[in-house]
Amino acid sequence: MSSINIERIENDLYELSKFGFNEKDKGIYRQGLTEIDMEARQWMMRKFKDAGLTTHMDGAGNVCGRLGDPDKPAVLVGSHLDSVPAGGMFDGTLGVVAGLECIRVIQENNIDVNCPIEIIGTSEEEGRFGGMLGAQALSGNLTLDWLESARDPKGEYLKDALEKCGLNVHDTLRARRDPSSMKAFLELHIEQGPVLENSNKCIGVVDGISGVFKWLVKLKGKADHAGTAPMDMRSDAFMGLADFAHEISRIIDEEGTDKSRITIGRVDLKPGYAHTIPGEAHFTIVGRDMQEDVMHQLANSCRKVLSSIARKHKLYFEYEQMSWLEPKHFNPEVVDLIEEEVKALDYSYMRMPSGAGHDIQFFTDLTPTGLIFIPSVGGVSHAPDEWSHWDDVEKGTQVLLNTLLRLAQ
Amino acid sequence: MSSINIERIENDLYELSKFGFNEKDKGIYRQGLTEIDMEARQWMMRKFKDAGLTTHMDGAGNVCGRLGDPDKPAVLVGSHLDSVPAGGMFDGTLGVVAGLECIRVIQENNIDVNCPIEIIGTSEEEGRFGGMLGAQALSGNLTLDWLESARDPKGEYLKDALEKCGLNVHDTLRARRDPSSMKAFLELHIEQGPVLENSNKCIGVVDGISGVFKWLVKLKGKADHAGTAPMDMRSDAFMGLADFAHEISRIIDEEGTDKSRITIGRVDLKPGYAHTIPGEAHFTIVGRDMQEDVMHQLANSCRKVLSSIARKHKLYFEYEQMSWLEPKHFNPEVVDLIEEEVKALDYSYMRMPSGAGHDIQFFTDLTPTGLIFIPSVGGVSHAPDEWSHWDDVEKGTQVLLNTLLRLAQ
Repeated sequence: MSSINIERIENDLYELSKFGFNEKDKGIYRQGLTEIDMEARQWMMRKFKDAGLTTHMDGAGNVCGRLGDPDKPAVLVGSHLDSVPAGGMFDGTLGVVAGLECIRVIQENNIDVNCPIEIIGTSEEEGRFGGMLGAQALSGNLTLDWLESARDPKGEYLKDALEKCGLNVHDTLRARRDPSSMKAFLELHIEQGPVLENSNKCIGVVDGISGVFKWLVKLKGKADHAGTAPMDMRSDAFMGLADFAHEISRIIDEEGTDKSRITIGRVDLKPGYAHTIPGEAHFTIVGRDMQEDVMHQLANSCRKVLSSIARKHKLYFEYEQMSWLEPKHFNPEVVDLIEEEVKALDYSYMRMPSGAGHDIQFFTDLTPTGLIFIPSVGGVSHAPDEWSHWDDVEKGTQVLLNTLLRLAQ
Repeated sequence: MSSINIERIENDLYELSKFGFNEKDKGIYRQGLTEIDMEARQWMMRKFKDAGLTTHMDGAGNVCGRLGDPDKPAVLVGSHLDSVPAGGMFDGTLGVVAGLECIRVIQENNIDVNCPIEIIGTSEEEGRFGGMLGAQALSGNLTLDWLESARDPKGEYLKDALEKCGLNVHDTLRARRDPSSMKAFLELHIEQGPVLENSNKCIGVVDGISGVFKWLVKLKGKADHAGTAPMDMRSDAFMGLADFAHEISRIIDEEGTDKSRITIGRVDLKPGYAHTIPGEAHFTIVGRDMQEDVMHQLANSCRKVLSSIARKHKLYFEYEQMSWLEPKHFNPEVVDLIEEEVKALDYSYMRMPSGAGHDIQFFTDLTPTGLIFIPSVGGVSHAPDEWSHWDDVEKGTQVLLNTLLRLAQ
């Protein structure tokens, strides 16, 4: 078996982590389409070149290093190079650096591969302008209208940020890859959650990405003086919300699965004064599951429970569905293939869904896809103390290499 | 029986409501120590003079109209003339205008009173600079240090606002009345709550003002990705808050009385993103009861329930007690006297506590005090649609007059 070299991966990840490193909070600030992000991409292309790959940056800022015939369908290996503000050194970068290491092992062992392999460091995955820009460009999910109107939270236009990086909206649209040019797409990523660590497993064989719905809910009651209104004469919008939150575990027990999640992450009370009974509670519900019919059951149950609680508390209830993204399932043959390779390597593993979105989700309908997770220490990600043990990085990369070789041969 | 004249009260209240009236939202904007507030006070003093009273404005901005000997102990009748922003036309003003009407009835019926009567329109009750400034000045609760450092939410110093009104901090301190100069203090006020209306009573014979405690509570867990963290691996600070809120009715059932209130009026979640499990929940608890030992029981129970919920949800719990105001009980003889007069008039009534604070609470330890409520339509106050039926205004003023005559004779 050709073995990957963990030291080279360590070196690459440490070098990459210097781009945007903040001495104060030890976080990495390498948001998409910034100057430092482009510097990191240039560095990555030099590393691709050093490994003998043909390199280019496409119109969306994706950096690509290709081994083999430029015209034949390729197995793609990719993840993102940008970070959230104050991010960690593994999120995204691991998948690109590990892909490069696979190429180096293939080269130095003179392994014959029957089809081209391309490593891609995608652009703006983390959401400065909405997220997954590079992956959406590659998979043909962007429109000119959206590209011209998108802005970051500070109000800067995406099109202006592209220009500053020497890119433009038209070349971004030209970055689309025809599905016939892809043979498969693989991604290695840190889990960004606590499941693998808590289950004492080294590898997550990911079978899909949860579907997710987001609601904005408004409960409207009556803002009264907290002293003059007796408890039984109130229409307290917050108490309606609290009663709903209390039912979430029952809703999941009755209608959901062990992969269901329901989260209330944002709450705004009006007027929001200590001495005033909240007249309105505005809040978000984010629900997830791997099966779309379960998502519908969860959503239906949330609606029924909220209606019933609104009646009980004399509240008016309304909600707006902000988004509904169906679950994405990876190609079962690729998932099985990954599992076979993990078993052959005798690594501990589990099949699992991904609760977070990843670049690869845009390719599930275009080409066979597979996603491999390694544990995140403490489940932490998007923070300076994001960490994954080098042992696990090594194992994850070995699984990526072995799967890649199966797909490319 | 000498009868009050409801038309004069209507006229006075309508005239007074023009000071600070906003055509757009129909609300009254007559915040304490503003130009329009001072204009209203000048108007009130002219009305006092028209009724033959000796008038003056004290150093705190209280306007006073006195009938009888300037040196003998007087029965005081007072309430406030300032309003909240977008307030209504009865809150406070009713008690001053009704007091003036009592004087007019006494004058025109040549009723002999044995002691002086003084009507006081107090200043800054509603809290621009903390509230109840006039009442605290009269009762000697202010300090020079506080007067010099207090500011309104826009940052204006109280001392500067006083100067603009031709007043100053030293004269504010001189406004204190010696307890020996008071024979009693009466206040007529709208209920600002729904109890009288829902109980179909015209008069509230108020026996005291609830004690109140205010806590700032912090529950700290772990901010995680709402997709990657399974429900059973979360430390969701908001779910801890929701579980606590759900226990409030049980806490009151077990530890409280029918006069207990517990309210969560303000909630801040951190980071407060739809897709992130709240790592921290900061919120207020405001608890009330008429008995201080019950307040302690409620507070103890809140602490125990929060501790237990924090353990269950793997949260860190801390709280800060921002204030603890003991209940205030009015003089039982005055309360009985009011009840006697209401019974003699054959008005429907109930004994009740006040959940809101009032000017009179600063006088309970200095002189016999009594507070009379009339119903607020829909329980609404501090809003343009604050209303009380003229029938009830008439009855409330009649009770005030009859009680005043008993105390002054």
